[in-house]
Amino acid sequence: MKTNFLFLMIILALIVLHGNGSQSMAQSSPTELREEIHDTAKRIVSKALNDWKGYFLLEELCKIGPRLSGSEKSLKAIKWAEQKMKELDFDSVWLQPVMVPHWVRGNIEEAVIQNSQLCEGKSLNILAIGGSIPTPSNGIIAHVLEVKNFEELEKQKEEVKGKIIFFSRSLDQRLLNTFAGYGGAVNQRTRGAIEAAKYGAVGVIVRSVTTKYDNVPHTGSLSYVDTLPKIPAVTIGYTDADFLSAALKQEPDLKIKLRLNCKALPDAQSYNVIGELKGTEHPEEVIVVGGHFDSWDVGCGAHDDGAGCIQALEVLDLFKRLDIKPKKTIRCVFFINEENGVRGGRVYGKYAESTPEKHIAAIESDRGAFTPRGFSVDADSSVIDKIKSWLPYLKHARIEWVEKGGSGVDISFIKSAKALIGYVPDDQRYFDVHHSANDTFESVHPREMELGSAAMAILVYLLSEEGI
Amino acid sequence: MKTNFLFLMIILALIVLHGNGSQSMAQSSPTELREEIHDTAKRIVSKALNDWKGYFLLEELCKIGPRLSGSEKSLKAIKWAEQKMKELDFDSVWLQPVMVPHWVRGNIEEAVIQNSQLCEGKSLNILAIGGSIPTPSNGIIAHVLEVKNFEELEKQKEEVKGKIIFFSRSLDQRLLNTFAGYGGAVNQRTRGAIEAAKYGAVGVIVRSVTTKYDNVPHTGSLSYVDTLPKIPAVTIGYTDADFLSAALKQEPDLKIKLRLNCKALPDAQSYNVIGELKGTEHPEEVIVVGGHFDSWDVGCGAHDDGAGCIQALEVLDLFKRLDIKPKKTIRCVFFINEENGVRGGRVYGKYAESTPEKHIAAIESDRGAFTPRGFSVDADSSVIDKIKSWLPYLKHARIEWVEKGGSGVDISFIKSAKALIGYVPDDQRYFDVHHSANDTFESVHPREMELGSAAMAILVYLLSEEGI
Repeated sequence: MKTNFLFLMIILALIVLHGNGSQSMAQSSPTELREEIHDTAKRIVSKALNDWKGYFLLEELCKIGPRLSGSEKSLKAIKWAEQKMKELDFDSVWLQPVMVPHWVRGNIEEAVIQNSQLCEGKSLNILAIGGSIPTPSNGIIAHVLEVKNFEELEKQKEEVKGKIIFFSRSLDQRLLNTFAGYGGAVNQRTRGAIEAAKYGAVGVIVRSVTTKYDNVPHTGSLSYVDTLPKIPAVTIGYTDADFLSAALKQEPDLKIKLRLNCKALPDAQSYNVIGELKGTEHPEEVIVVGGHFDSWDVGCGAHDDGAGCIQALEVLDLFKRLDIKPKKTIRCVFFINEENGVRGGRVYGKYAESTPEKHIAAIESDRGAFTPRGFSVDADSSVIDKIKSWLPYLKHARIEWVEKGGSGVDISFIKSAKALIGYVPDDQRYFDVHHSANDTFESVHPREMELGSAAMAILVYLLSEEGI
Repeated sequence: MKTNFLFLMIILALIVLHGNGSQSMAQSSPTELREEIHDTAKRIVSKALNDWKGYFLLEELCKIGPRLSGSEKSLKAIKWAEQKMKELDFDSVWLQPVMVPHWVRGNIEEAVIQNSQLCEGKSLNILAIGGSIPTPSNGIIAHVLEVKNFEELEKQKEEVKGKIIFFSRSLDQRLLNTFAGYGGAVNQRTRGAIEAAKYGAVGVIVRSVTTKYDNVPHTGSLSYVDTLPKIPAVTIGYTDADFLSAALKQEPDLKIKLRLNCKALPDAQSYNVIGELKGTEHPEEVIVVGGHFDSWDVGCGAHDDGAGCIQALEVLDLFKRLDIKPKKTIRCVFFINEENGVRGGRVYGKYAESTPEKHIAAIESDRGAFTPRGFSVDADSSVIDKIKSWLPYLKHARIEWVEKGGSGVDISFIKSAKALIGYVPDDQRYFDVHHSANDTFESVHPREMELGSAAMAILVYLLSEEGI
């Protein structure tokens, strides 16, 4: 589009006039206070969008590599984060010990078509699902049975024995909310190995749960139960899933050779990384802002959830850059091991129960670093109404709504907090990159990420200064 | 983030229950009607997100190439669009003749540093600004004076004569609204050549007006006035603008050789492309939905504004796919020449004044194919209130707000319409690609684009069935 100059000039004039608004002091009437909060909110947004400091910190973090729990790189990243919080001159910085599962992908991941006239030897693009057992060292070779879901599997249970089950259901793109689409398809990844093992399957191949039609496989976690044999499980790129499905229609007797050398090592020592600004009036009252610091071991966990952690860190750093001294303690927590154990969240939750500090509220950012939409609040309706009344301030960072809803997996263990809040950015692109090699620093947009930091900083400021 | 299964299952159950809602008949009470409209809105969104038909049509269009007014490719695209509307079985399809300016870039675009100890011969990444005159065939060589704006230029007017003026102001990233940032910097591109010529400059180099810090120059249009000499004008990539600025600080005496062979040819024959579905009850009442079909001649005008046109076309095609027969006539207009003349909008505006048809409303999509945000409505407050009351339906396509504001350059000439409406997607990424080689099909996200089509389809449906 072309500029409509007059229109733009009017907007600019209004913005300039608006920007010159009241800078009144803290002790003031409600109306004046309102202007002061607007002013603070605008300064937060302006600073975040000008400096891109969180964005460049995320770039540093992503250069370390992915951060799967227990991995060497995750420990390197934890040291980096601790050092960074100290350099940023937070009032306290500490590591909270957490024992985490230590699963390792290994260097052999093969799925090759055999017993085929049409595509003998074709290699499929797969990843072991996190937590999978390995195959025997020379692999397994088996026929393949394709099903869409557990109901179809159950109907064909007589045919399952000795086969590899191919769960081929797609994420339902018709749904507006991609999290609902994801939720409707992901049980084949998390529980497919259990359901297939019930009827004697020897392995599982699962179509990637993704909104992007490329061939990049998306991993994630799975469950096993002790009462059933554990069988190896892999996820397959979207287009190779289409290929396999078509191939099976032409040649139902084809086989696949599956070979994995992933393994589970003993639990490893790891840490939540914690930094805080002490409250000037109520240091014993704590507002937590956080994300999870572990990621899957492909890509670099930029959106999931490096960006969420850095946004939380940036809330504190924005306060420092703008010389905002909060009344309550603002604590940034990088929770470890959300992806395959949630151990970091549990450890922090126990700490929150036992400490004499009082946890007022917690905010988690773990839905990607996309453009802001809203805040989802798990709290009493009176608290939600109060937070809703702050929307005019939050709109400076493009927050459009505050609604009752779930918050975040890690903070859900902070039982005593009056409000558990999830930051909700736009979701249309999230499952393009989620748990895959596509989740890179390059997929993060600086302004979108910084608006998330700013939105959380405004909310934390209000929680601290206004209370709930 | 990891799935919180219980939470997701509850959401899914609610969605399924909600989706099985009333399918009541047209003659019904207000409450039932409301459910029926919700149902239609959901069917529109679901269809758009499932089929991605507009997205794949945009891919076809982008393969033709960029569509600068008067160019051979623009005529090829116009034929493609006419043919496509016929294949989609619209009730009427026609071309509306428009004479358009015909500026051609040429194959020589050089800006080379000279008279330098440090960077002699360095070539800068530039594009002629659309409408620029060429240089003499052997180029011009001149000293360079850097200024930030017209005020600085005026203060140094004694030093301007014989020089190339380098306008180096950046888009102000601190502003939340990137259109405000753009509006605050773009006059150096549109009017820089006039202001510099007042004081005897021989050429103009303008920092690209962009939110992205790469070296891809962003073009656009400029103005000349007959009372002043016309001087050649180019835009320079963001990082090369930084380079030039730093170089001038070290060596104020450096020169630049500028060489361009762009030219303005006589006005050319072109067309608006128009297709419509005839209203079943009020065929004489027309709702226009459109975008502009021309683009700049770099990239392929995917966001600006191929996507806007295809979204408009998809509104009609969604009605056909869902067997919705609108009461009023729905007309899709691809306006030509918005970028450097607005001739298509003017011709359609004159037609709208002279036809016995009654134009009820017009919607334009010309802010990119990003995730939906709102509708900006130029109308009486009673009309705006009515459209606001439709927000619960529009939310099915992620529309969050309806507000008073500007609409679109092309439809602004349809003076008799009761409502002129601009579709407003998220703006954070738009000026990364705007008017540059970055504006490619690959930069468009299928779900985000399709939600725009769906949002406009729901609004058009309401305008047609409910009236204003």
